[in-house]
Amino acid sequence: MSTAPTAELKQKDQNGKIDLTKNSSLCHKCTCCRDIDTSTGFKVKDNFQRFSQKNDIYNRVDWDKSIRSEKTLNFFRNYNTAFARFRDVDGFRHKDYAIRNAAWHITDYTCELKEETEDRREGFLDTYTLHRPGSKNKLRIESSKEISQEIKKIARFLGADLVGVCKFDKRWIYNYKYSRTSHMEKPIDLPTDLENVIVIAVGMDYETIKTTPSALSDAATGQGYTKDLSVILSLAQYIRNLGYQAVASLNDTALSIPLAIQAGLGEYGRLGLLITKEFGPRVRIGKVFTDLPLAHDKPIKFGVEKFCSTCRQCTNACPTKAITDGKPSDVIHNKSNLIGVQKWSVDAEKCFNFWVNTNAACAICIRVCPYNKDYSKFIYRIGRWLAGTFLRKLMLKFDILLGYGKRKLPNNWWNKNKN
Amino acid sequence: MSTAPTAELKQKDQNGKIDLTKNSSLCHKCTCCRDIDTSTGFKVKDNFQRFSQKNDIYNRVDWDKSIRSEKTLNFFRNYNTAFARFRDVDGFRHKDYAIRNAAWHITDYTCELKEETEDRREGFLDTYTLHRPGSKNKLRIESSKEISQEIKKIARFLGADLVGVCKFDKRWIYNYKYSRTSHMEKPIDLPTDLENVIVIAVGMDYETIKTTPSALSDAATGQGYTKDLSVILSLAQYIRNLGYQAVASLNDTALSIPLAIQAGLGEYGRLGLLITKEFGPRVRIGKVFTDLPLAHDKPIKFGVEKFCSTCRQCTNACPTKAITDGKPSDVIHNKSNLIGVQKWSVDAEKCFNFWVNTNAACAICIRVCPYNKDYSKFIYRIGRWLAGTFLRKLMLKFDILLGYGKRKLPNNWWNKNKN
Repeated sequence: MSTAPTAELKQKDQNGKIDLTKNSSLCHKCTCCRDIDTSTGFKVKDNFQRFSQKNDIYNRVDWDKSIRSEKTLNFFRNYNTAFARFRDVDGFRHKDYAIRNAAWHITDYTCELKEETEDRREGFLDTYTLHRPGSKNKLRIESSKEISQEIKKIARFLGADLVGVCKFDKRWIYNYKYSRTSHMEKPIDLPTDLENVIVIAVGMDYETIKTTPSALSDAATGQGYTKDLSVILSLAQYIRNLGYQAVASLNDTALSIPLAIQAGLGEYGRLGLLITKEFGPRVRIGKVFTDLPLAHDKPIKFGVEKFCSTCRQCTNACPTKAITDGKPSDVIHNKSNLIGVQKWSVDAEKCFNFWVNTNAACAICIRVCPYNKDYSKFIYRIGRWLAGTFLRKLMLKFDILLGYGKRKLPNNWWNKNKN
Repeated sequence: MSTAPTAELKQKDQNGKIDLTKNSSLCHKCTCCRDIDTSTGFKVKDNFQRFSQKNDIYNRVDWDKSIRSEKTLNFFRNYNTAFARFRDVDGFRHKDYAIRNAAWHITDYTCELKEETEDRREGFLDTYTLHRPGSKNKLRIESSKEISQEIKKIARFLGADLVGVCKFDKRWIYNYKYSRTSHMEKPIDLPTDLENVIVIAVGMDYETIKTTPSALSDAATGQGYTKDLSVILSLAQYIRNLGYQAVASLNDTALSIPLAIQAGLGEYGRLGLLITKEFGPRVRIGKVFTDLPLAHDKPIKFGVEKFCSTCRQCTNACPTKAITDGKPSDVIHNKSNLIGVQKWSVDAEKCFNFWVNTNAACAICIRVCPYNKDYSKFIYRIGRWLAGTFLRKLMLKFDILLGYGKRKLPNNWWNKNKN
């Protein structure tokens, strides 16, 4: 069986394969895209262009003289503790970098396993190599709905907190990947018959994020990626073991946020991130491209768009004013922005500049977001419900009044509940 | 500072280094070993010999004609789904092997990364390579107690469920490792100045274990190893980032169970496994050898020894009668047993034979163990408490009467709570 609807054809060339090479064959005005954009609220304009990963702020450090400097290069060198520069400031001491770099270790070394030999930085610039071939026999799939449910169950067994499925949408696939070996763009090497995307998310540690800006809080990010990596590699292998194709992808190959929104994992927020019902913006996303015939989820709405229209917690807290105070717009700040999508857009240059100056990734916008709560607690679920009603301003006032989102001292994290 | 007590010297040669090569320099009669054996309850005899990993049942498949056969080799080939043999029996179908092999995937491919080039099967026959050098500057340690507490906090942050610390004890280090490339013993390559061992454990999935024997239930084992791997690699990197030495080890290099017991993670059970307070025998163990000056934990007792003396759930349930009905003894069944320790010993040949015949690892002894419960629930904590009192027989009767430990149908797991 196949789940491919006829409307999808516009994403394909005359041979029925998805054509990933040409911007010209984009289908953002076709029925299928209109339908999904109506559900997500995306406003994709006529001048839309697929993003080239070379314009990602992290890759611009490699080739763009306006970003590349000893200071920006040092920022990355700090992830290797042998070269890290600690300072006698709470949150930026030896052990803060030690835990940050330890939490990033698995993602980092996996990323470098094939860099020298195959020019692949897996997880960041290239999809992951899967080391086992999978089954030669395809498991017969009776129902796309049932296999979707099963895939979600398996993903959770393997460690995912959230799972959704969406149709492959070429618009969010990078136009080109980037190679830090050749310092050039390189073509996307995704197989052209993977019609579905499984998007997973894992919650990041709440307590360490509260200490941002700090090297310590970036340990939550590293730990999130480690969990992501574990889920997507195992999940992709599961699908291959069923006899189907699967490609595991972290930050490489495609923009994760629009895919996560299309897969029903959450809404888009002013801070430029996915806001989930379960963890707010405190998640890391992973994805698996597959030809397993899956049923798709529907985008969800729980009031984020209206709430973010009212709230300015991230805008006000951002030390570099990288987050817009205004309405969604397609005006771009610089070449790291996506062209032709009307949305709240972040100024990545300003944002990254703060990271480089403090010498650790910042997550203040995540920390202060009123959706950044521990929703296992009933009281916060009430708050989330209120944020989705006409009482949103009242909820926001209480949130501020009660001091949520204030920075906690990293030292307190180190000293608390040691046992 | 150093935590090395003088009594430890007997484990060392005249240069003050731990000598791992000679059985003759064992110190099981010295004060330090007597002290720890008194706390753990270990009874180590005069004829004690360190275990050579070639006698591990899995390695005997490689060299021992009495174990090696097409059938035993096929058992291992099944972990690669391309060669797996499914059958139309609940729990042994295509998707049961697909999830089992997916859950094992990360541990399996990591294990093979350096096999061809460096003759290292990391995690099973050799310790893990750490890919980042760590810090050149040693963090000053003020208190071994405090750094121990901190290491436990970090280990939990990185995903460990249980953490303890014990002194390095040469008796449990393999006499020799084994190479599946040369089919020979090879020397232990652990640095000789690592005086402490951090032992971690992660809980395995409760629901899939209930379906054992099945390929599905072995997914819980794979998933446990994946978690272990993630914790020990990151934790070892953390310690290196502090400027100290750390070596991450899974099933390689040393017997994990006695180290876990010495580190206070639980007691030894009749089924030949560690029984923890938090998960019963449903755990996987990992360890990190280090020279970080840590304070040691004390072995714990919560009634397991007396309970296991009364209970025969594992003995009766084991389809091959591999688990002893009798008292702890130093009689060995075959060369896979440890020589010179009076304990409940399992017949690994009988046990493994069942695995090979069913074509999946069995965990019936774990499933039926009255300590195999979800101790997040209050009612089970009462049961555990009862098991440690003179009412243990009553507890056992109720446990049997209420049907705990009965096999659940794998199909029910697949069909339950799909969403």
